[in-house]
Amino acid sequence: MASLDIAALLLTTEADVRYITGFITRFWESPTRPWFVIVPATGVPIAVIPSIGKALMKTTWISDIRSWRAPNYEDDGVTLLAQTLCETVPKGARIAVPGGGGTQLRMPLQDWQRLQAAAAGRVFVGDGDLMAAQRMVKSEAEISRIAKACGVADRAFARVPEIASAGTSLRDVFRRFQMLCLDEGADWVPYLAGGAGPGGVRDVISPATDSPLQTGDVLMLDTGLVRDGYFCDFDRNFSIGPPSPATMSAHARLIEATQAAFDVAKAGCTAADLFRVMDDIVTDGPDGSDAGRLGHGLGLQLTEPPSLIAQDHTVLQAGMVLTLEPGIDLGDGRILVHEENIVIREDCAEWLSTPAGPEMMVLPA
Amino acid sequence: MASLDIAALLLTTEADVRYITGFITRFWESPTRPWFVIVPATGVPIAVIPSIGKALMKTTWISDIRSWRAPNYEDDGVTLLAQTLCETVPKGARIAVPGGGGTQLRMPLQDWQRLQAAAAGRVFVGDGDLMAAQRMVKSEAEISRIAKACGVADRAFARVPEIASAGTSLRDVFRRFQMLCLDEGADWVPYLAGGAGPGGVRDVISPATDSPLQTGDVLMLDTGLVRDGYFCDFDRNFSIGPPSPATMSAHARLIEATQAAFDVAKAGCTAADLFRVMDDIVTDGPDGSDAGRLGHGLGLQLTEPPSLIAQDHTVLQAGMVLTLEPGIDLGDGRILVHEENIVIREDCAEWLSTPAGPEMMVLPA
Repeated sequence: MASLDIAALLLTTEADVRYITGFITRFWESPTRPWFVIVPATGVPIAVIPSIGKALMKTTWISDIRSWRAPNYEDDGVTLLAQTLCETVPKGARIAVPGGGGTQLRMPLQDWQRLQAAAAGRVFVGDGDLMAAQRMVKSEAEISRIAKACGVADRAFARVPEIASAGTSLRDVFRRFQMLCLDEGADWVPYLAGGAGPGGVRDVISPATDSPLQTGDVLMLDTGLVRDGYFCDFDRNFSIGPPSPATMSAHARLIEATQAAFDVAKAGCTAADLFRVMDDIVTDGPDGSDAGRLGHGLGLQLTEPPSLIAQDHTVLQAGMVLTLEPGIDLGDGRILVHEENIVIREDCAEWLSTPAGPEMMVLPA
Repeated sequence: MASLDIAALLLTTEADVRYITGFITRFWESPTRPWFVIVPATGVPIAVIPSIGKALMKTTWISDIRSWRAPNYEDDGVTLLAQTLCETVPKGARIAVPGGGGTQLRMPLQDWQRLQAAAAGRVFVGDGDLMAAQRMVKSEAEISRIAKACGVADRAFARVPEIASAGTSLRDVFRRFQMLCLDEGADWVPYLAGGAGPGGVRDVISPATDSPLQTGDVLMLDTGLVRDGYFCDFDRNFSIGPPSPATMSAHARLIEATQAAFDVAKAGCTAADLFRVMDDIVTDGPDGSDAGRLGHGLGLQLTEPPSLIAQDHTVLQAGMVLTLEPGIDLGDGRILVHEENIVIREDCAEWLSTPAGPEMMVLPA
């Protein structure tokens, strides 16, 4: 913050607020109320939050908690926030707000304009990706939580034969798979996507339909479940009955690409390096895939910086947790995607998910 | 839009985009990519989205889909969006962006600034709560989906005795309750909060701890589950062993308040009217509760306008779906909260959740 000449950070999103305070609740699902945390360059963080969150915030390490009764249509915390900022930040000084790629300002636009007027004399600037950079390198405590989340998904994926075979509707598979995740220890399951289709899937972000699984289908399940506040994010592909040689070969190529990226991953290489290693194996032409990237960071959120794309020259550091997520285009609008989770160490990478082998798991036809 | 002199609406959030397009995916859990829909005053809506969403958007009624490969660090859709806006909106005309209470702009701040520069000559203004007003009145198809979600939660709450008794950890209760919701037909469970404590709970937004339920505890479970893209949002209170007379009386008062609001609810009364009816019954002093409101709208989101607060003079219309959510302060920092879901009709209200009786359900001590 000193090197960026920032007197305070203003945070508004679930992940940023939780990163600083430890405040964890699913109440962010309600869009009604804004929540604010100020991190001054010197001194302790200040929470400026709706009164409904006071009791829970008091259980964290945050000692300075100011609250108002929200929703308040005339002034939904703006005056209280502006007063607190003016108390904390001298006139002419800069207040940084995360504003780069992948960020959002979680407060109404009209209140954002009011705030800038009410905190007159203070300058609001972007944070130069300071929070993103800070959050990108995980502590051992964070890594251990992500590893536990991965273990839950590992066990749930191993039990998919209990819930899916030819004839099961995709909707039932999705529902039952979330139950398996919970049964194996997930606290909640914020993300499950996937699909099923002959030899591959049409896209990887669809919700389930009522269509039944058919012999020859590939079933892909991609889950981001949360355990102790941290995400895993990886997928598995299953073949309903024995896979065709083309499907087997495509899946083996995805595993090869994942392994190749794992083998080069260590502190000092870049996000783009990992992209190139995988892209060389899975892409025939120059176009790459519509997914736009072949992996990303994860932790407090399902997806975090960096992105494994050619443009991302982030130098990997020990403690970064990444997904490796190569996809392969099978033609006819069908794709296969594979995903694992790893942590970067000084001289190597370590698997956090238990890596899948080249042979696709087979479910009863 | 004509009366507000708006040439186009620019939408960025999951719920607004889904309301217009029907595009449903849990992929919004990833904060990396922005998504845009333009609704021109004349002509069809235009989706400006990352290419990863193209295949799924093509399955909706939207015919004009423009995409870019995201993430792109140099230009994450801003130029494409600005071009599309300039094509659609003449110079000098106004583009409305939802900016009132409860809204957020789901795109990076720096891109928002770039967009305003790139769409030069067009004027960005707030939408005067146009989207909120539009979404507040549900169609019969929407009401039927919310009713189905309520039915799922009704059945899950009825099965709580299968999973909770003295000695069960709250964490296990939360996990197993989500499994019950899925088993009864939820597509996913974006929200579960609650708590347990002697005679009442400390707050209603906490995640679960490992503490075991104890005889004399009240267990509160409040779930927002999704079925076919629509939320229910209501809670139930359970007593571990027989409740004390004070707890019984407090719970009965909550039911009385809920029933009183239900009895007056119909088209033509206001959100504030429902607040007053409940507040008169549950609040002794002038202060009301820290929750800040005694109910709210719901539908595509867990919480939507209006808010049942004294300030909200929204005139209720047939088709509005609301929660009635009175809370009662028991002293010592303990509270009890009860919640049901209703739909407003011309001359009355209808229950969407099956209303609880005054006697609290009892779980084995």
